[in-house]
Amino acid sequence: MTKRIKVVQFGVGPVGAGIVRLASGKPGIKIVGAIDLKNVGMDLGDVAGLESKLGVKISNDPEAVLKKTRPDAVLLATGSVLKNIFPQIQVVLEAGVNIVSTCEELSYPFLKQPALAARIDRLAKKNGVTVLSTGVNPGFLMDAWPLFMTGVCQNIKKIRAVRIQDATPRRLPFQKKIGAGLGLDDFEHLVKSGTIRHVGLAESIGMISAGLGWKLEKITEDIEPVIAEKDIRSRHILIKAGHAAGVRQTAQGIVAGREAITLEFEAHIGAANPYDAVYIDGTPPLEAVIKGGVHGDLATTAMLVNSLPRVIQAAPGLLTMKDMPPAFTFPGQDLG
Amino acid sequence: MTKRIKVVQFGVGPVGAGIVRLASGKPGIKIVGAIDLKNVGMDLGDVAGLESKLGVKISNDPEAVLKKTRPDAVLLATGSVLKNIFPQIQVVLEAGVNIVSTCEELSYPFLKQPALAARIDRLAKKNGVTVLSTGVNPGFLMDAWPLFMTGVCQNIKKIRAVRIQDATPRRLPFQKKIGAGLGLDDFEHLVKSGTIRHVGLAESIGMISAGLGWKLEKITEDIEPVIAEKDIRSRHILIKAGHAAGVRQTAQGIVAGREAITLEFEAHIGAANPYDAVYIDGTPPLEAVIKGGVHGDLATTAMLVNSLPRVIQAAPGLLTMKDMPPAFTFPGQDLG
Repeated sequence: MTKRIKVVQFGVGPVGAGIVRLASGKPGIKIVGAIDLKNVGMDLGDVAGLESKLGVKISNDPEAVLKKTRPDAVLLATGSVLKNIFPQIQVVLEAGVNIVSTCEELSYPFLKQPALAARIDRLAKKNGVTVLSTGVNPGFLMDAWPLFMTGVCQNIKKIRAVRIQDATPRRLPFQKKIGAGLGLDDFEHLVKSGTIRHVGLAESIGMISAGLGWKLEKITEDIEPVIAEKDIRSRHILIKAGHAAGVRQTAQGIVAGREAITLEFEAHIGAANPYDAVYIDGTPPLEAVIKGGVHGDLATTAMLVNSLPRVIQAAPGLLTMKDMPPAFTFPGQDLG
Repeated sequence: MTKRIKVVQFGVGPVGAGIVRLASGKPGIKIVGAIDLKNVGMDLGDVAGLESKLGVKISNDPEAVLKKTRPDAVLLATGSVLKNIFPQIQVVLEAGVNIVSTCEELSYPFLKQPALAARIDRLAKKNGVTVLSTGVNPGFLMDAWPLFMTGVCQNIKKIRAVRIQDATPRRLPFQKKIGAGLGLDDFEHLVKSGTIRHVGLAESIGMISAGLGWKLEKITEDIEPVIAEKDIRSRHILIKAGHAAGVRQTAQGIVAGREAITLEFEAHIGAANPYDAVYIDGTPPLEAVIKGGVHGDLATTAMLVNSLPRVIQAAPGLLTMKDMPPAFTFPGQDLG
């Protein structure tokens, strides 16, 4: 490890804290600053749940932190909705700092928010830095991984990715996001208001179709509750029989008049056989399964930290996972 | 598809012919020349087993073909041993043409042949072009794919890749390469002479350790026959009970004094449950399995053709699969 990567953590909620716990254990990374609206003045190690202090105080002044610390990259974990976090992105880019983000809508923003995407790309290029948004999904399981597996295929007719997730061990905000514990009326209400939804399926379809050179005609999406057949008790929530244990969400990408891309996302408490899978109807056909599935919280923080070297080396601009050399596990204490 | 990629096929043996059959069906690729020592003057379509002619005659004069056709890339499928094909590489690079190669030893040549690797890298940079060697293995299943899957891991202790292959449907040269049908004395003799061996395990271990930032201390390799328990008849070969049905080859990468990388390659006629798998002992742990395995011949030609756009766009030099954005299925007639 020649030179340590200097990072600032922007957003120290549950995901941000997980990133900090991981990054602080990597000899090749030095956390030099932290930004959040909460816990201002507290030590980042304390807030992130580390056993020792990090000597980094949380600040609510992004410009001051970036100016003082001059990091190589900001790890941005403040929200899923791109327009809400755009001002933060702007501040970081104008400070001439690379961004690795968790923002789902930023993972492939060219379909739903082309103007904002173009603006971020221009800002990044103007300041000579790179923006990447990643995570486990979107960012890996339903876009980068399926695309990667197509490398061994001569031709493809259809591609399908499935993620069946047991939400039982996940953090409470995640369980709430999938509607676990709600009555069906409440569930439907929150679906209609846009509160219950996994963000990223449309973005993943966009990335896959672009990666394969397919002209995407339409994306359709469906969302429904997974209904508990009996009472289920998780660490955080009691789910009554007949109530929602979580969500089943599907998205279809229509190409040349037919369903060419299918994504099936299911996250509920008490899922018996979690797994992640990619099915390619092509030459040769391919069926790849991750037994037990990938642990979402651990994997998301891993993707953020592991992407740092690639983002720092990349050409300036707004990039997506399909444009980059893949990120590998960042060297640690043990073997690295 | 804005501009067709112009390619020259160098080497029209079984693998090269497969590449030609695939590439000739892609609207985005135009085959403009072919080089081989055999079948000189014949039409490439006839030699590759296509139903119609391609209007491209096979030539044994590489310099003349490259000068006349000025391709974007050469698809080089002439051999596994780097020093044997180096003169061909040199001719192509000096003509200022990118190379996508099947040469196993070139997939990660920095450990076993650092001087030759450095020479190729210099030649490529001097001529402003890129060299990549790829395929299904090495090139994907035991290096690029395991590395890719580490992206969702926070830390890794060990990584293991397994390929159990049924050689029954493979072409005869492949069946001979794995010693199928030989008596055990003959098998051992050909192992000792280096004739029976899958080339690439050491290269894959080199790529994985480099990708993870691990300091590789040693590579060990073992090779033994898979012995037929009863008579087995394939399309090409009769294997008597007690004779070799194929090969079992393993390689271990030693890092920090312990076995951190394990590759297990098994190819024999009559393998009942072929599969490819990656097992990561890490946080989170990960077990990814491709059911039925990946069809080697189809996948190798796919990797070559699919890599063309990435290689043409890449920075000059000798690159490996770990350095590149992944290759995806090249758009075809259907949906592309």
